[in-house]
Amino acid sequence: MLNFTFKNRTEILFGKDQIQEVAARLPENAKVMFLYGGGSIKNNGIYADVTGVLNGVVVTEFAGVEPNPEFETLMKAVQVARDNEVNFILAVGGGSVIDGAKFIAAAVNFTGDPWDILVKDAEFGEPLPIGAVLTLPATGSESNGNSVVNRKETAQKRAFGSDKVQPVFAVLDPQYTFSLPARQVSNGVVDAFVHVIEQYLTYPVNAPLQDRFAEGILQTLVSEGPKALATPQDYDVRANIMWSATMALNGLIGKGVPQDWATHMIGHELTALYSLDHAQTLAIVLPSLMFVQRDHKSAKILQLGERVFGITEGEDAKRIDLTIKAVQDFFEAMQVNTRLSDYQIDKSNINDIVANLEKNGMTSLGEHGDIDLAKAREILTLAA
Amino acid sequence: MLNFTFKNRTEILFGKDQIQEVAARLPENAKVMFLYGGGSIKNNGIYADVTGVLNGVVVTEFAGVEPNPEFETLMKAVQVARDNEVNFILAVGGGSVIDGAKFIAAAVNFTGDPWDILVKDAEFGEPLPIGAVLTLPATGSESNGNSVVNRKETAQKRAFGSDKVQPVFAVLDPQYTFSLPARQVSNGVVDAFVHVIEQYLTYPVNAPLQDRFAEGILQTLVSEGPKALATPQDYDVRANIMWSATMALNGLIGKGVPQDWATHMIGHELTALYSLDHAQTLAIVLPSLMFVQRDHKSAKILQLGERVFGITEGEDAKRIDLTIKAVQDFFEAMQVNTRLSDYQIDKSNINDIVANLEKNGMTSLGEHGDIDLAKAREILTLAA
Repeated sequence: MLNFTFKNRTEILFGKDQIQEVAARLPENAKVMFLYGGGSIKNNGIYADVTGVLNGVVVTEFAGVEPNPEFETLMKAVQVARDNEVNFILAVGGGSVIDGAKFIAAAVNFTGDPWDILVKDAEFGEPLPIGAVLTLPATGSESNGNSVVNRKETAQKRAFGSDKVQPVFAVLDPQYTFSLPARQVSNGVVDAFVHVIEQYLTYPVNAPLQDRFAEGILQTLVSEGPKALATPQDYDVRANIMWSATMALNGLIGKGVPQDWATHMIGHELTALYSLDHAQTLAIVLPSLMFVQRDHKSAKILQLGERVFGITEGEDAKRIDLTIKAVQDFFEAMQVNTRLSDYQIDKSNINDIVANLEKNGMTSLGEHGDIDLAKAREILTLAA
Repeated sequence: MLNFTFKNRTEILFGKDQIQEVAARLPENAKVMFLYGGGSIKNNGIYADVTGVLNGVVVTEFAGVEPNPEFETLMKAVQVARDNEVNFILAVGGGSVIDGAKFIAAAVNFTGDPWDILVKDAEFGEPLPIGAVLTLPATGSESNGNSVVNRKETAQKRAFGSDKVQPVFAVLDPQYTFSLPARQVSNGVVDAFVHVIEQYLTYPVNAPLQDRFAEGILQTLVSEGPKALATPQDYDVRANIMWSATMALNGLIGKGVPQDWATHMIGHELTALYSLDHAQTLAIVLPSLMFVQRDHKSAKILQLGERVFGITEGEDAKRIDLTIKAVQDFFEAMQVNTRLSDYQIDKSNINDIVANLEKNGMTSLGEHGDIDLAKAREILTLAA
């Protein structure tokens, strides 16, 4: 096992009607920015719940944070936060809104160009505290310090991370996911699944507990994901997916083990160039990446196959093939397509994708740093 | 899944030589109480490491915290802490030292009789902050708010719990466990195993991820525990046990599910009356408790048998018997005996044990509150 430090400062408020706990957790004299996305929360009761618990508090609403939150939009929110002397951000939504809140929280008191927080790891002072009300289980953003921001004008998707911007609390009420469109449910399950894979499917370092935890999340997502599509009003199914997605990326399972993240880095370029959903990009890249990296990853692919998909028969090479296919079949069962061509992207686009990887310095990805531009091209070609 | 709130404030510093991280985490103008147990740390290098990182800091040493820490000893430490205006406790040891530190931390500024913290849940103000350097993986005390204190003069073992006394950091260096006597290694593995069981072996509430995590810890302990006895200098084995014991009782796996804890409550009386090691009491009580509660617990016992011990053949009743036997065999393989008679306690003592349970109000134990004194007697009789 590798050395590590671990602490997770987010208080999880999980279950029915936990929104009621929010009021007691706001700072005194709170001036709250109520941040949300496209407005679906106005149709499913969540907006009313939130305004209910914010009754009597000074609130500035900021709506319109996009999926893959846009730098330009977030900078508008920064200005609004400054103008209204906001001292707390309540982010109500999925990973995009919460990621956006983290960037706003860091940028409000930052004196330089806030883009530097994303591209130069610029140091920032004490950010605004954030509370999260999660409506879409997927990214784990509600209890980690990661944020990904998109910038359309330059076709860039960039990330920053800091414990300082991690939400102080996160409301996880599975009821808030009942009204999600199937596509978002599917994306969330695929996203969480790949988060686990990035921290698990590398090479063994004799860390059996981390393996078991990772496999436990994968097993749960594989069993509960399709149920969420088949019986969308099942509370326990929603609860199990919600808790799995949070545990998938709250830092725990990746401690003491190598991590990969190449699938995410390649996927980010697909979103930046073609506006694909984040999970769609992961579903495209991962199976091909597993195939190209199968020698490095053989021990863990075999273990994944056996423990998560019950693949125990045949030679190693056969079991590896079957495991890759099982992953791909799972994504397809979740109604997320796994080929570039499914999204009207063909081989002629691969040059552009590789060029973008190069522009963003993504030239030595993966747990061994051996996914260079040539290997990335091989992966993308296989996924065409 | 049941509603829950969860936050764990302890920063885990895991791995080789992480003791070096301590100095940077002490408060400014720290006046540290360096609290430890019987002095074994002077023979294995840990004492030297700790005094090394405390170089230049005002330190008050307090040695002699016993296994099952004694109220009287801890009250002496409280006086020493007051006399020296200590503002930080560095607890170096196993669960007993860390549990003791929590009581001292709460009692130092408490104006009433500190025994009330244990028997009347008396409110206390801001406790002293605690850092832990773990030398014996077992209780999970290094990253939870629980404390158990013994009082010989009245044959009482009582607990209190508060997030406020949870260590702010915990150093988990597996190297620090190399010199442990086999008996303490065994006790630690059994203790951690039963901590998981208390939060797992109840009844299903459709919380598959919690089940998988619990089973993952159990599987790891079952596979690594005997290796720690066979090859005591294997770093990874020690690391895996250490991390498992911490995860067993840091609050995570018990969230959203029912909990039992009857084995612990009955076991506490065996320590209070006969000074048995805590883990010995658990190894005695658990198998018999599983047998007596087998109807309530059947679904989870079958799942435990299948997933942790590979017991999949035969009728339910047979598989339940085999699973109880597998648990008992595991304890015996860890060299912890499982019968009262192994410790020179016989049936004639059971009246005293039951009387003590009654005196301490332990008359409706377990996840259904149905373990009354008659059932406790049945369990103890079966364990004779």
